[in-house]
Amino acid sequence: MDQIGMAVLGAGYWGPNLIRNIRAIGDADLRWICDLDVARAERANGPRSTTRVTGVLDNVLEDPDVKAVCIATPAATHVEVGLACIESGKHVMIEKPLALSSGDASKLAAAARDAGVVLMCDHTYCYTPAVRHIRSLVQEGSIGELQYFDSVRINLGLVQTDVDVFWDLAPHDLSILDFILPPGVHVEAVAAQGADPISAGRACLGYLTLRLSSGAIAHAHVNWLSPTKIRTTIIGGSDRIVVWDDLHPTQRVSMFDRGVQLNGGLEARRDKLVSYRLGNMVAPALPEEEALQVALREFLASITEGRAPATDGNAGIRVIRMLEAASRSMELDGATVPVEA
Amino acid sequence: MDQIGMAVLGAGYWGPNLIRNIRAIGDADLRWICDLDVARAERANGPRSTTRVTGVLDNVLEDPDVKAVCIATPAATHVEVGLACIESGKHVMIEKPLALSSGDASKLAAAARDAGVVLMCDHTYCYTPAVRHIRSLVQEGSIGELQYFDSVRINLGLVQTDVDVFWDLAPHDLSILDFILPPGVHVEAVAAQGADPISAGRACLGYLTLRLSSGAIAHAHVNWLSPTKIRTTIIGGSDRIVVWDDLHPTQRVSMFDRGVQLNGGLEARRDKLVSYRLGNMVAPALPEEEALQVALREFLASITEGRAPATDGNAGIRVIRMLEAASRSMELDGATVPVEA
Amino acid sequence: MDQIGMAVLGAGYWGPNLIRNIRAIGDADLRWICDLDVARAERANGPRSTTRVTGVLDNVLEDPDVKAVCIATPAATHVEVGLACIESGKHVMIEKPLALSSGDASKLAAAARDAGVVLMCDHTYCYTPAVRHIRSLVQEGSIGELQYFDSVRINLGLVQTDVDVFWDLAPHDLSILDFILPPGVHVEAVAAQGADPISAGRACLGYLTLRLSSGAIAHAHVNWLSPTKIRTTIIGGSDRIVVWDDLHPTQRVSMFDRGVQLNGGLEARRDKLVSYRLGNMVAPALPEEEALQVALREFLASITEGRAPATDGNAGIRVIRMLEAASRSMELDGATVPVEA
Amino acid sequence: MDQIGMAVLGAGYWGPNLIRNIRAIGDADLRWICDLDVARAERANGPRSTTRVTGVLDNVLEDPDVKAVCIATPAATHVEVGLACIESGKHVMIEKPLALSSGDASKLAAAARDAGVVLMCDHTYCYTPAVRHIRSLVQEGSIGELQYFDSVRINLGLVQTDVDVFWDLAPHDLSILDFILPPGVHVEAVAAQGADPISAGRACLGYLTLRLSSGAIAHAHVNWLSPTKIRTTIIGGSDRIVVWDDLHPTQRVSMFDRGVQLNGGLEARRDKLVSYRLGNMVAPALPEEEALQVALREFLASITEGRAPATDGNAGIRVIRMLEAASRSMELDGATVPVEA
Repeated sequence: MDQIGMAVLGAGYWGPNLIRNIRAIGDADLRWICDLDVARAERANGPRSTTRVTGVLDNVLEDPDVKAVCIATPAATHVEVGLACIESGKHVMIEKPLALSSGDASKLAAAARDAGVVLMCDHTYCYTPAVRHIRSLVQEGSIGELQYFDSVRINLGLVQTDVDVFWDLAPHDLSILDFILPPGVHVEAVAAQGADPISAGRACLGYLTLRLSSGAIAHAHVNWLSPTKIRTTIIGGSDRIVVWDDLHPTQRVSMFDRGVQLNGGLEARRDKLVSYRLGNMVAPALPEEEALQVALREFLASITEGRAPATDGNAGIRVIRMLEAASRSMELDGATVPVEA
Repeated sequence: MDQIGMAVLGAGYWGPNLIRNIRAIGDADLRWICDLDVARAERANGPRSTTRVTGVLDNVLEDPDVKAVCIATPAATHVEVGLACIESGKHVMIEKPLALSSGDASKLAAAARDAGVVLMCDHTYCYTPAVRHIRSLVQEGSIGELQYFDSVRINLGLVQTDVDVFWDLAPHDLSILDFILPPGVHVEAVAAQGADPISAGRACLGYLTLRLSSGAIAHAHVNWLSPTKIRTTIIGGSDRIVVWDDLHPTQRVSMFDRGVQLNGGLEARRDKLVSYRLGNMVAPALPEEEALQVALREFLASITEGRAPATDGNAGIRVIRMLEAASRSMELDGATVPVEA
Repeated sequence: MDQIGMAVLGAGYWGPNLIRNIRAIGDADLRWICDLDVARAERANGPRSTTRVTGVLDNVLEDPDVKAVCIATPAATHVEVGLACIESGKHVMIEKPLALSSGDASKLAAAARDAGVVLMCDHTYCYTPAVRHIRSLVQEGSIGELQYFDSVRINLGLVQTDVDVFWDLAPHDLSILDFILPPGVHVEAVAAQGADPISAGRACLGYLTLRLSSGAIAHAHVNWLSPTKIRTTIIGGSDRIVVWDDLHPTQRVSMFDRGVQLNGGLEARRDKLVSYRLGNMVAPALPEEEALQVALREFLASITEGRAPATDGNAGIRVIRMLEAASRSMELDGATVPVEA
Repeated sequence: MDQIGMAVLGAGYWGPNLIRNIRAIGDADLRWICDLDVARAERANGPRSTTRVTGVLDNVLEDPDVKAVCIATPAATHVEVGLACIESGKHVMIEKPLALSSGDASKLAAAARDAGVVLMCDHTYCYTPAVRHIRSLVQEGSIGELQYFDSVRINLGLVQTDVDVFWDLAPHDLSILDFILPPGVHVEAVAAQGADPISAGRACLGYLTLRLSSGAIAHAHVNWLSPTKIRTTIIGGSDRIVVWDDLHPTQRVSMFDRGVQLNGGLEARRDKLVSYRLGNMVAPALPEEEALQVALREFLASITEGRAPATDGNAGIRVIRMLEAASRSMELDGATVPVEA
């Protein structure tokens, strides 16, 4: 098969990861790295490379051999840069969040549809072996009915200058939730509580509560100010409960047989408090794959096969609508507000 | 010194812990164990004991050598049993929650004041070496200004038949928060989000957000349905951040030098994401003491010294007012509601 | 059933645990606590108890209602105290090590046989749910052939004045190994390497290597000087490998499907180094029971049923012979020496 | 400064790590990748690279712009390949073990001395922030006198076809030990116990005990067959004890104030068993650096500055002599054998 000519736009934090992974895929040919800061793009390119570097987007867009573009520029530029690429007929993969408003995200989706190109939102976590495994457990019904989803994503990060902690970190949790939800279930409403204890001008830590159409609840704790790093998600089902600890490389996913029962008196309670779980636990053997590489392969496959990627523009739009509802909830002192359908 | 004659009322889940600890204190003499289920009281007493067992509260109240009573009956009975003891001139220590309403709790406090007896609320966690250490760090200013408080208390527990998960588990978190708050700071408002995914008739998992008068935020996640047991609290200060992991016996308290700075550009961000913390961490050597024994010693000391215990009736009332605000917030779909002053 | 009258000899470190557990068993009646330090025995007895306390062993031996005695005196006294009890017709359970020489241990076993009383060695760990589960896995063949056994038992302990770290700590590991060995397999030889870095006059940390008759290897690291506490045992089998982490209360036993294969070239190696295990892991739900209580029930059952207990005098003798071989190996600079059959 | 022209020989398991890190260093110019399997070398090179690939060593040796060579070929070829490079006037860095005998290793060292080129042994772990920190703690005396060193390095790895587990894994532990030893202290003798439970034809797991000239003891457990991955080293000193857990990225190094005291009676023992450590623990903030990059910088600096690298040929020889003593001990059934001076 011919290689697909590619370009990476943005050589800041995430760009080098894209570059490294594109280079590791035989089907792709990285032709350009573009960044307004050309020296940074040069550093990201590395020595002895024939990949070209530029600070001018048009150089990339005018190269007919560039078929697909990965956009890792600041979120505020996604809509403009993305539309330029789409209008030049390039397939695009855009970092999360897809845009800073659902209106802009919808423009990207409409433009891609009109141009007949792929629009993929790089919800990287959805491509981890853990999340794909959890998705199959949820959607095949092996956890029973989804009852709750609780995610903690905290550690020491730089306080962003353009977005608050919800828009910076929660897209991970929200895109994972969106990805694993059983068919027919969606997020109906969001309540957000945030705080800015260091007077940064925006929320630096916060809590999202999401109400699902099935009656289940989801919650995410995002925090830039925590000295400890925690990335743990609990997915509670009526039959099994799954714990995903992304920082435990040899046991990322633990599946517990369901343990709580309503019957039993005070004597039973004591036993249950002592025996922390009643059923066996199974930790499945999962492959060790870099999620971004799996995501890039999905991008290329969706181009080749002429189909939507697993995390398409609509997934990006849904996540942004949850974030918009969170922002409105913050303005309403934490009230629960509906998510735009 | 003469021993203080004591009685334990309620031989269910918590009673045996009270009995064991009272017996280990030389200053106390356990004269009675009282429970409507006399056989259960007999089992709690154990063999070859001259401690008397009864199902009739009056037998205890009429014993003039009983000076102090520990009440571990169901929460709904606290006010009636507590008032009877107080009116008999007994000093009382009552399990959390002090009562099921702030009105009832205030009645207990007023009665104790009128009778000149000690009323202590058994906020056991406040007597752990970890919490006492954290309290001194906060109140002596060595963490700087308190910025956030985040507590997770989840594991598999029996779904209670009389109270929801907030009233069952959150008194621990709220009493700890109340205990460590710097002078002049109090909880102003509460928002609560709960869920009952197993149709138990009451919230089985939930999230509390508390707004402090200083502008800081506190949050508690309580959950009866989690297969993993987590008991971790983060106390964020402007100078240091403390992580208390109650399930890590050899390193319960970790104090991190503050790491987040507002300056620094995009390049700095990458470094910070890689290096999870910037400062040293110190885990202080803490004694291994059973908190309940320390609490009982405080109860006896407050009796002997004629002073209020560290967790007195007022502390119990403050915690109940937070719980009442949480219940109102639940009725208002998660809206933030003020705590009664 | 009538209760069995019991006595505890020795109220030092372990005695209070025996007392507490005997009291929790309905079938036993603790009549006496005996210690040369009577005040210590009084403290161990606790208040309001009708259990009698004495410093004179004969008081216990002359009580015809005492049928069974638990001996928790210093190891050097086990043989003398044990023989006195046996000769008085008492069934005896003796703390590990059974004696300080296999000759003395054999005297105890012979005396018990002659007197028709039970002699049990309190190899407490053999009565944990974890070890019993592992034993059944090994003996039922579900791990395949036993290939290796690796045990680490280290933490900060007091440097003993009478025995070295091998005789103090390794009886745990050796008794567990002895307990789980498949039928027909025994320990043939021992090599020991010890060190006394603090000039205590005896080894304070050391390493035992044991050669099994099946060709398998066992190893134990025992250490009084470690600041971290580790109690982890790996039991490698040809089909499955079991990891027992006694300090991980919610996941004490982990069973891994066998992952190593001999075939595969250099390319395969890289994959294996990245994916730490190839098969699923199962952590069985185990009951939370106090091992000492299970041991005491076994002691009482062996008396009632007139049979040998699961850890009888012969088990105690086998463990001591391994320790004696270890001591000889130390004298021979770590050479591998045979264990007396 | 001019860049130093470099080549990587061997594109198997370790080669790609060398290639990636050389490319990330501005001072180096990777001119050649050489492997008998040219396709593997091409893959390691990656796309769009002007670095040349060859299967013929002479092509590299004849390039006058290649000043420094990193050798990651199989251990059995180190001496031949290394001598060829040295005789061509190239500076060489060779993967551990430096050679398969101390004789061969000495030949390499002598040849490099004669040719006036740098010979560095890539003891990568010595360049981790953790080991450098521990080295400074030991050598500056802040742990007091070194008392013991205990290292565990186990996980599922491929059974090597050319070397046993000691020669494969223990060079890590032995090079770290060699690197941190205080001046004047050296390893005097080694005892080794190994096992081959899967009939691989060589030891697949084993234990090394090392006797230091100071009287201290060192021990290493290496194992290819463990389902769990452990990489923990304890360095016991008379004043402080350091625990290095390489798999705990946010707390790799923990320094405990010394806790054991010889005085104290039986009562004291109980306290010590309960309180696992007596002093505070400090976990220093360490930079997150890739050790191999630091090692490569040391290689380049030693070339530029005309000095021996921190892990020079002599370090490599010392490690091999320990391994040779271990092999002799294995033949002598675990007897303690001296290390060649």
